Amino acid sequence: MTRNRPTNNGRTFAVIGAGAIGGYYGGLLARSGREVHFLLRGDYDHVRDHGLIIESVGGGFELPHVNAHRSTATMPRCDVVIVALKSVHNGILPAVLPSLLHDDSTVIIMQNGLGAEEGVAAIAGVRRVMGALCFVCSTKTGPGHIRHLDYGHVTLGEYTPATGGAGITQRLREIANDFEEVGVTMILAENLAAARWRKLVWNIPNNGLSVILDATTREVVRSDSGRSLAIGLMKEVLEGASACGYRIEQEIIPEMLKVTENMIPYHPSMKLDFDNKRPMEVEAIYGAPLRAARKAGLDLPHISMLYNQLLFLDMRNRSV
Amino acid sequence: MTRNRPTNNGRTFAVIGAGAIGGYYGGLLARSGREVHFLLRGDYDHVRDHGLIIESVGGGFELPHVNAHRSTATMPRCDVVIVALKSVHNGILPAVLPSLLHDDSTVIIMQNGLGAEEGVAAIAGVRRVMGALCFVCSTKTGPGHIRHLDYGHVTLGEYTPATGGAGITQRLREIANDFEEVGVTMILAENLAAARWRKLVWNIPNNGLSVILDATTREVVRSDSGRSLAIGLMKEVLEGASACGYRIEQEIIPEMLKVTENMIPYHPSMKLDFDNKRPMEVEAIYGAPLRAARKAGLDLPHISMLYNQLLFLDMRNRSV
Repeated sequence: MTRNRPTNNGRTFAVIGAGAIGGYYGGLLARSGREVHFLLRGDYDHVRDHGLIIESVGGGFELPHVNAHRSTATMPRCDVVIVALKSVHNGILPAVLPSLLHDDSTVIIMQNGLGAEEGVAAIAGVRRVMGALCFVCSTKTGPGHIRHLDYGHVTLGEYTPATGGAGITQRLREIANDFEEVGVTMILAENLAAARWRKLVWNIPNNGLSVILDATTREVVRSDSGRSLAIGLMKEVLEGASACGYRIEQEIIPEMLKVTENMIPYHPSMKLDFDNKRPMEVEAIYGAPLRAARKAGLDLPHISMLYNQLLFLDMRNRSV
Repeated sequence: MTRNRPTNNGRTFAVIGAGAIGGYYGGLLARSGREVHFLLRGDYDHVRDHGLIIESVGGGFELPHVNAHRSTATMPRCDVVIVALKSVHNGILPAVLPSLLHDDSTVIIMQNGLGAEEGVAAIAGVRRVMGALCFVCSTKTGPGHIRHLDYGHVTLGEYTPATGGAGITQRLREIANDFEEVGVTMILAENLAAARWRKLVWNIPNNGLSVILDATTREVVRSDSGRSLAIGLMKEVLEGASACGYRIEQEIIPEMLKVTENMIPYHPSMKLDFDNKRPMEVEAIYGAPLRAARKAGLDLPHISMLYNQLLFLDMRNRSV
């Protein structure tokens, strides 16, 4: 199982899921001539026939023909497999991943929240797993149609179960370079778990509050009450991170508030999922951090409350 | 100013506000032949022309003619003045109350939450003020039209700024007797503030969560996540009460959950206010208890979070 040994110049990509994240980043790679294979479900027919349309603040483009697959049976083993599903669908990964991997493949979990790498490591092996955090406002407006609204940089890190982080590897630099070449600003994380907790400082307040308050991120953060809620949640993310061994500086709180204030008025993906009665990523973004903190002996009451509110709404949506 | 000295058999009543509470209890008093004067605003024309209709699980009735007033100018001084406004309108009381009171009048604050008695005491004097807590599911379905759905008992207590409570007075017994005579089960509170905190054990979870989760009280308490939210909030009410000097036994929590489970699926008044874009009683039910606890040195994170969520929604509704 050592065929298709990658070279720096010819890495091949599989993208599982062509939504707001997989469609956007996979689309950028495909546009540059990289070999990119998309695994699709509901959108398969449309993307096979019409390809992808990427509207973007950075200049849009169309890809009338992409390698669209309905099943892994037609897909080659690839050098890089990007998991760009909603985390609520990670249950399909044990069936999907093995046939896409060769000995030196890397799996990149391009999802928010905590916990996905552990699950993929059990399937693919720890050494194959990376995680990516996308700081991007993008939305799938229809099958194969992505609207990129703001930002776009990605933090990439090697997975390790150790708290200390896996550091910067040669492989990490090379794959980051592939993304840089197609126009994505990349940040290399020495410690992926620490980076995931940092990302939660934004995701935990903004995803949940936009759902609960039926509001854009800007409306929330520009109101006294919404800002107070966001700050209370952010403080707890820092406490949770610290309990788990990851120190985040307090200054991130005003910085994140500033970023959100100046961002376009945005409905995070969780809000869109809720409005469209799709499952929300409640466990990855709230449940997993709460459990990690509790394991370290710390309760996070604001986050716990938001978690239960979102669970209530999610359960009701799922039972519709 | 000693005219109209009341007798046990002839107490006269003024009811400020004829909504779900004032219309129901005032209606019961009026039906029995008591002299009851209603002060109305938006519903004045309708109630003057058509009186009150009370649908009730305990047997409905109609009062085609009631003493309806648009202003205090046409109202006599009364022995008992029932404040049955939403607390958000208490700002009118300094203008309304003085002309309704004689030397021995009693003002009964028939509202949920904390803080209203202090304000009324500043207008009417501490010795004139009582508070009432209505354990009732009732709704105003239209002008002068009240639907009584479940429960109905009232806890009545003398106001005092002292933590120890004012005890049971002769006057308290007499006024309670007036209500008993028209079919209302009355509970006399030795300590009104303690009773108000006890009532908050129900109101704090149920009012806010029904708004935030867009759900009935039963849906909330019968789901795992909703129940967990309710319990977290209830525990904090007990902690806040304790910090302020009022001990509430832990057993109230399973009892209140049971009551709510077995109650009809109910939208508390705050939920109806929210849905109809009316101001919500956020300060009385959440702000005042939070401030009282904070003054005693205690933060209540779950309640604080719900408070800010409700403030956000309330501010948006008010700016519509």
